[in-house]
Amino acid sequence: MSQDPLVIFTPSGKRGRFPVGTPVLTAARQLGVDLDSVCGGRGICSKCQITPSYGDFPKHGVHVAQDALSEWNKVEQRYDDIRGLKAGRRLGCQATVQRDVIIDVPPESQVHRQVVRKAASARVIEMDPATRLYYIEVQEPDMHEPTGDLERIARALKAQWDIEKISTDFSLLGKIQPILRKGAWKITVALHKTDENDIPRMIAAWPGLHEGGLFGLAIDLGSTTISAHLTNLDTGEVVASSGIMNPQIRFGEDLMSRVSYSMMNKGGDKEMTRAVRDALNTLTEEIAAEAGITAELILETVFVCNPVMHHLLLGIDPFELGQAPFALATSDSLNLTAAELGLTALPAAAQIYVLPCIAGHVGADAAAVTLSEEPGKSPDLALIVDVGTNAEILLGDTTRVLACSSPTGPAFEGAQISSGQRAAPGAIEAIRIDPTTKEPRFRVIGCDKWSDEDGFWEETAQTGITGICGSGIIEAVAEMRIAGVLDASGLIGSAEQTGTERCFSEGRTHSYLIHDATDQGGPRITVTMGDIRAIQLAKSALYAGARLLMDKRGVDKVDRVVMAGAFGAHISPLHAMVLGMIPDVPLDKVTNAGNAAGTGARIALCNLKARREIEKTVREITKIETAIEERFTEFFVAANAIPNAADPFPELSKIVTLPDVSFKSGGDDSTGGRRRRRRG
Amino acid sequence: MSQDPLVIFTPSGKRGRFPVGTPVLTAARQLGVDLDSVCGGRGICSKCQITPSYGDFPKHGVHVAQDALSEWNKVEQRYDDIRGLKAGRRLGCQATVQRDVIIDVPPESQVHRQVVRKAASARVIEMDPATRLYYIEVQEPDMHEPTGDLERIARALKAQWDIEKISTDFSLLGKIQPILRKGAWKITVALHKTDENDIPRMIAAWPGLHEGGLFGLAIDLGSTTISAHLTNLDTGEVVASSGIMNPQIRFGEDLMSRVSYSMMNKGGDKEMTRAVRDALNTLTEEIAAEAGITAELILETVFVCNPVMHHLLLGIDPFELGQAPFALATSDSLNLTAAELGLTALPAAAQIYVLPCIAGHVGADAAAVTLSEEPGKSPDLALIVDVGTNAEILLGDTTRVLACSSPTGPAFEGAQISSGQRAAPGAIEAIRIDPTTKEPRFRVIGCDKWSDEDGFWEETAQTGITGICGSGIIEAVAEMRIAGVLDASGLIGSAEQTGTERCFSEGRTHSYLIHDATDQGGPRITVTMGDIRAIQLAKSALYAGARLLMDKRGVDKVDRVVMAGAFGAHISPLHAMVLGMIPDVPLDKVTNAGNAAGTGARIALCNLKARREIEKTVREITKIETAIEERFTEFFVAANAIPNAADPFPELSKIVTLPDVSFKSGGDDSTGGRRRRRRG
Repeated sequence: MSQDPLVIFTPSGKRGRFPVGTPVLTAARQLGVDLDSVCGGRGICSKCQITPSYGDFPKHGVHVAQDALSEWNKVEQRYDDIRGLKAGRRLGCQATVQRDVIIDVPPESQVHRQVVRKAASARVIEMDPATRLYYIEVQEPDMHEPTGDLERIARALKAQWDIEKISTDFSLLGKIQPILRKGAWKITVALHKTDENDIPRMIAAWPGLHEGGLFGLAIDLGSTTISAHLTNLDTGEVVASSGIMNPQIRFGEDLMSRVSYSMMNKGGDKEMTRAVRDALNTLTEEIAAEAGITAELILETVFVCNPVMHHLLLGIDPFELGQAPFALATSDSLNLTAAELGLTALPAAAQIYVLPCIAGHVGADAAAVTLSEEPGKSPDLALIVDVGTNAEILLGDTTRVLACSSPTGPAFEGAQISSGQRAAPGAIEAIRIDPTTKEPRFRVIGCDKWSDEDGFWEETAQTGITGICGSGIIEAVAEMRIAGVLDASGLIGSAEQTGTERCFSEGRTHSYLIHDATDQGGPRITVTMGDIRAIQLAKSALYAGARLLMDKRGVDKVDRVVMAGAFGAHISPLHAMVLGMIPDVPLDKVTNAGNAAGTGARIALCNLKARREIEKTVREITKIETAIEERFTEFFVAANAIPNAADPFPELSKIVTLPDVSFKSGGDDSTGGRRRRRRG
Repeated sequence: MSQDPLVIFTPSGKRGRFPVGTPVLTAARQLGVDLDSVCGGRGICSKCQITPSYGDFPKHGVHVAQDALSEWNKVEQRYDDIRGLKAGRRLGCQATVQRDVIIDVPPESQVHRQVVRKAASARVIEMDPATRLYYIEVQEPDMHEPTGDLERIARALKAQWDIEKISTDFSLLGKIQPILRKGAWKITVALHKTDENDIPRMIAAWPGLHEGGLFGLAIDLGSTTISAHLTNLDTGEVVASSGIMNPQIRFGEDLMSRVSYSMMNKGGDKEMTRAVRDALNTLTEEIAAEAGITAELILETVFVCNPVMHHLLLGIDPFELGQAPFALATSDSLNLTAAELGLTALPAAAQIYVLPCIAGHVGADAAAVTLSEEPGKSPDLALIVDVGTNAEILLGDTTRVLACSSPTGPAFEGAQISSGQRAAPGAIEAIRIDPTTKEPRFRVIGCDKWSDEDGFWEETAQTGITGICGSGIIEAVAEMRIAGVLDASGLIGSAEQTGTERCFSEGRTHSYLIHDATDQGGPRITVTMGDIRAIQLAKSALYAGARLLMDKRGVDKVDRVVMAGAFGAHISPLHAMVLGMIPDVPLDKVTNAGNAAGTGARIALCNLKARREIEKTVREITKIETAIEERFTEFFVAANAIPNAADPFPELSKIVTLPDVSFKSGGDDSTGGRRRRRRG
């Protein structure tokens, strides 16, 4: 019994012997156990809650007696009376070690707790926020030893938290004195670090113990929509999500139109910068209101966006991005303040982190996808395509990661498609065509039934059948190919050639009728030759980009494909492969990552180390510029065929046999050659 | 002859052997010789001019042949044709070493050149500015290796100047791309360091080689006037000086009235902050115009000011400075940007340095005096008094420095004096009273003659004799004491007691008539008992502060006295000592430092190391708060007598015998006890 009691922490397994009477928090700190505390052990913040385990633990070789920890003291009793402690819980700073004990640190008491995001893939985010709270008790001013209030705060942080040095955001200078006096010389400060070795920067302060939490915004600033997730930086929980249209749309639908707008209109870039910042301020206010918090508590914001959005957000004229060599003003990540960016809805000192851009056409959004999907950590060769108006493409494994972007255009999102529309109730999102009868059945957004199921028409009577959205058009074209009404070159057959009246003549080409709602005052939903050509252009660009990366890597197949992007999440892997959008892989090797850019933004928001990691990764990525690669054109031309004129699709052949039809008649003069190379 | 040629640099004396063909600049760099270069040795900036010496130099043991350096090359020839090189000069980056040579680096080619300020004491300022220019040639963007323009600038700085890492001011992000292209990928950047080991921050950039120079403002932000010196940061030369009234005067004449204004009026502090910043913007524009430069070139500004001005400049409510314990919001030095301070006349990225405050009443102006006068480097014990509405007092030698402030009030500046006025033409600035006849003679501002000299009245007819300024009232009171019309207690004798009709009765006290200009429609200039009391209060406060520091230091005399302050420069040392304003020392040990605070600001502007030095010194200074020191009152009461009731003035006695008169009559009821303790 001469030995000090043994203290074992779970789940870390860290253990050590401590003198009787050592507070559990002290033991945890000495062992480097991840046990949170904001008040520094004063029994007021309750962040250090732990659960002792009692009984026999053969695995650990200890018996834990009922009196292994000190009895409840007054501080714990008062805390329990006022706030309530969960059964079995103790305050780590109050309970002291008496005998051998096993102590469990529940997830909510860990600073570096892991948060599982609610998406298909179970990506885990480890909490390691850049901004943390510190409760301190500050010495009152003394005429005998006159130092500023700020300098006494710094001294308290050194004495009570062993923080050597801090800097202070200018916006706090005028606020510190009243806060200190309101809190009777007890205050909570928020310290931000851009790096582990950085001098922490004081960016907020509250009188006494601050219990209102800290929040962060992860913002995916897209050309069309701006979406934001408001995250509790303590728990990692998303407390509100919101999105608004990017008001820059009035200056141009796609990226290049916006670059043109700034070229044609003096001060046009300034107008667009103002518009997006105003929208961000509105979004911030709305999302804070939705979560029921004050925006004053939002101290971190992370941005991911394409290069043009990146420059316009930062107030940089995107002029250079509109012409070769597509030079970015800056490609590295940026640490800024809300005051610098003019984000007035946030506190002036709120910290902004913008992910690095990979290249002139491969932006911080692609970096975010890289952070989320981690191709560089994949043992097998993964192809990641973020499908949008501009597709970002990543190819990599633990050896090397390559990246490029490809100008797919808006066809995949239902734009420039005759019956195309945005994904909204009434839009056809899935379709099947019977290979024998060539008759279609479909599903529309807002109804779970297929059109040949009972009740479909009743349930869709309200919305009607209004058009085809992005995922619908991909399925339609692929199903037409499977059913043999479309040949490999992308020609729709005539009624005679296909044996169905649904194929009808329009000028010198043919179209396929999906649904005629004109009886009900609705539209006639068809797939025209023009639609096929638009989809061919888009999918050829996407495939050629992927194929170019494979060529650079010296491979002609990949092990798996990940489809990402808000829109990518809705694409049917089988149909994408029939179309030849993505390379041939076993179907179960095609997965969907959902909004991976948004996830990457959330990871960077919650974890400081992830920021350093993605900055390093981005520097190491091999950047490929499709515009100057000769083979891109070769791959593009071959990819015009459905699925492809040059590359075999053996895995696809195992599950689908595409009819060997040809509708070449000389009646079609639209070819893939007159491709408009537009970005965005 | 197998040895490499010997190269000796003067004035440093550094020497070394270098292979034939080594450029002089390269040799200088390898030896650590201070030879400037902005263009990095490309022969375009001409900063590296040197002068070779030819002939025999027995002292150095070398003979320098005429062909010791290479012949003029085309670059030098072209430079000379276009700009002209001074006779004997060479470009250090072009001339190469051929034989043993002695090379003189003229002051204008040294980065750390020494600048002698044009003041009484020959204080030398070594140039070591925080912001320096670097000319670089930047790699053009390349699609094969896409990095941002900013990242390629950083790479050029690493390759061409061995600068490891930079940060970039946010305001430059949008400017870099057009500048790079305008300069055809050649640019000059200004890098700022707050510290020698700091990561340099890019704060300005120009296309090609920037030859417009860099400028800095040293600003002494006083309660009454704001004065600024615009300095060329390359040469250290003051190119323009300007001053304007502090517009905060409309909120209160002295410091405490301004603190009261902010207490009484919600948002009052904000109003005063806005007023002073507006004035600084006006001053900046005026001084730039006076020097014929654009304010875009002013990249550094240093502020010295008292604590209330300090807080109002920074946007901090000075509320706490109005009451014990006079807590400063922050006392340390500050590094800010013009954008943060709202100094819109300066470039947004212009760097602001604010000197540290010593204590709640001893501000950054006192720190600047410390930097300029260096009491901590004085081998003998020096007392430094910065005389103003509030006096800052420093006592120190190499052992230790003590500081306090004392509320002298405005009497020394001629305010609250019956015939007092600001120092302006027509004001009496010097006076002598004949001890026998008790008749005065005087000099006024705007005329070099004494009033008893021929031509005085003609020359002053224009201005008239309008009043007494600060230095005049000090001399008047001291001369009255020497002439025996005033006794040691501060009573003016009657006509009978003094034997002169110039002493006349006013109510129950007497006054002394200096000049009656009523015949000419001017005023009757007198010194009243009230004036004597006001001066007694002021000088007692000043002396008591000094005496308190001496007491704390355990001495009853000092070795020398330095009078500083715009007003201090005009005070006659003899009269100050007769009055008992300053302690007794041999008269030749009283010197005048002029505007030492302004000089301190200029030193901090020109020399980065000086900033670190004063920050360290300020931390080490022993701060004394007169308000809580019991002996202050004791010293104050004793100092009411002229020169002093308790302390002997043996040195003064050697040169002046003060008449042993006493005019005590019971007719005077004004005493030193009813002292108003006002700061400011």
